[in-house]
Amino acid sequence: MRRIHIIGIGTGNPEHLTVQAINAMNAVDAIFIPTKGAEKEGLAAVRREICSRYVTNSRTAIIEFAVPKRATTDRTYLKSVDVWHAAIAETYVRLIKELPEAGEGAFLVWGDPSLYDSTIRILERARKAGTLAFEFSVIPGITSVQALAASHRIPINLVGKPLEITTGRRLLEQGSQAESTVVMLDGETAFSKIDDPDAEIFWGAYLGTPDEITRAGRLADVAEEIVRLRAEARARHGWIMDIYLLRKGHDFDDL
Amino acid sequence: MRRIHIIGIGTGNPEHLTVQAINAMNAVDAIFIPTKGAEKEGLAAVRREICSRYVTNSRTAIIEFAVPKRATTDRTYLKSVDVWHAAIAETYVRLIKELPEAGEGAFLVWGDPSLYDSTIRILERARKAGTLAFEFSVIPGITSVQALAASHRIPINLVGKPLEITTGRRLLEQGSQAESTVVMLDGETAFSKIDDPDAEIFWGAYLGTPDEITRAGRLADVAEEIVRLRAEARARHGWIMDIYLLRKGHDFDDL
Repeated sequence: MRRIHIIGIGTGNPEHLTVQAINAMNAVDAIFIPTKGAEKEGLAAVRREICSRYVTNSRTAIIEFAVPKRATTDRTYLKSVDVWHAAIAETYVRLIKELPEAGEGAFLVWGDPSLYDSTIRILERARKAGTLAFEFSVIPGITSVQALAASHRIPINLVGKPLEITTGRRLLEQGSQAESTVVMLDGETAFSKIDDPDAEIFWGAYLGTPDEITRAGRLADVAEEIVRLRAEARARHGWIMDIYLLRKGHDFDDL
Repeated sequence: MRRIHIIGIGTGNPEHLTVQAINAMNAVDAIFIPTKGAEKEGLAAVRREICSRYVTNSRTAIIEFAVPKRATTDRTYLKSVDVWHAAIAETYVRLIKELPEAGEGAFLVWGDPSLYDSTIRILERARKAGTLAFEFSVIPGITSVQALAASHRIPINLVGKPLEITTGRRLLEQGSQAESTVVMLDGETAFSKIDDPDAEIFWGAYLGTPDEITRAGRLADVAEEIVRLRAEARARHGWIMDIYLLRKGHDFDDL
């Protein structure tokens, strides 16, 4: 049976690769990397660099493919995601079919495959569709949550307190539900639209790459600057990946 | 000025080490590893193995030290942690003082230094105390949250939904606050005491090590088995590190 490894590769710093990830990349017949469609060109370049730096096995093929785009017109968010996943599943099955029988392949995933990434659920869907038998395993990678905390040199949670990880969309709808809230996938700068002036924000974009930008401070003091920095950086690069922590209170406040 | 690296080393699988972590371990004058006191002997052995596998620079010294224990009598949880951190900060300052001026040292932290670990906040406390000038940086590592998801081969969040990371203590007090709740630091099997029979639990202990155990299922069906497995494993090893995800609902339920 064919075997797939879903490999987390961290947030853009090639040194985020784990030994486990590098060993798997050198054990497979093919590494599939998305270079067109939904993938940004700058990100495809980093994936290529990671392969050229770490793949030393000359029998490992690097196979580039185009990711279907998500159609957002005339459907709800969830419906659009559902249809999109079905299309990607078909693409994955085509790629996996090209492997030798009992061959192994790998998908490289930004950050960690378990957090706000759908490669696992799409491969599970492809497997359940039953047109092709294969197994898969998951190799964890450094998430942008950890890269954010590392760059700011802060614990991501307060002592003994919970951490919430959510999306910009949910933050706008529900506000933050915990003392520490990490917001991912926020294209609409939700942090600048909530009413929580005394919260501290720890923001970072292009984390782990040479283009990394970070800012931190009281939300009321720095939100405007971050909105401006973000727009400028997005215009300059043509894309942006950013993340932030909103924190209320301090360690030992309840002492 | 002396410089410290706080290095995340993953959850017990030596292959969780990142290239960044390995490079830092080989660039420092000394790696400090806790081998006595609060540290379990089995864990100290894994740290030693990681050093012997990856440290190739013969000028890097491995310095073992004892961690102060937390005194829990006659004080609240937070107060006991506060006093404990102060004692550890003093230990850290003593270790850092032994480095050459402008020398570099490293602390190896299980998982990631930002998540339910206090090395960052204790070093910040030591720096603010001002008895010794030093700087520090943080190198992210694989958390047990990611190792758990990888072993179960599942996304840790539902599509577009939030994730909560909390403690057993908080779960008992407040229940789960999100569709996906990861519980760490649960010595009291809080999952077996909450009333949520239809939630799914994905549990793992000693993740990433040869002793790894995992179980998953409907809470009402498997909670009792996990309580038993956990007690047996803890008795056998003398210690346990475990974590679980509680999940309510499924992807695309709202479609």
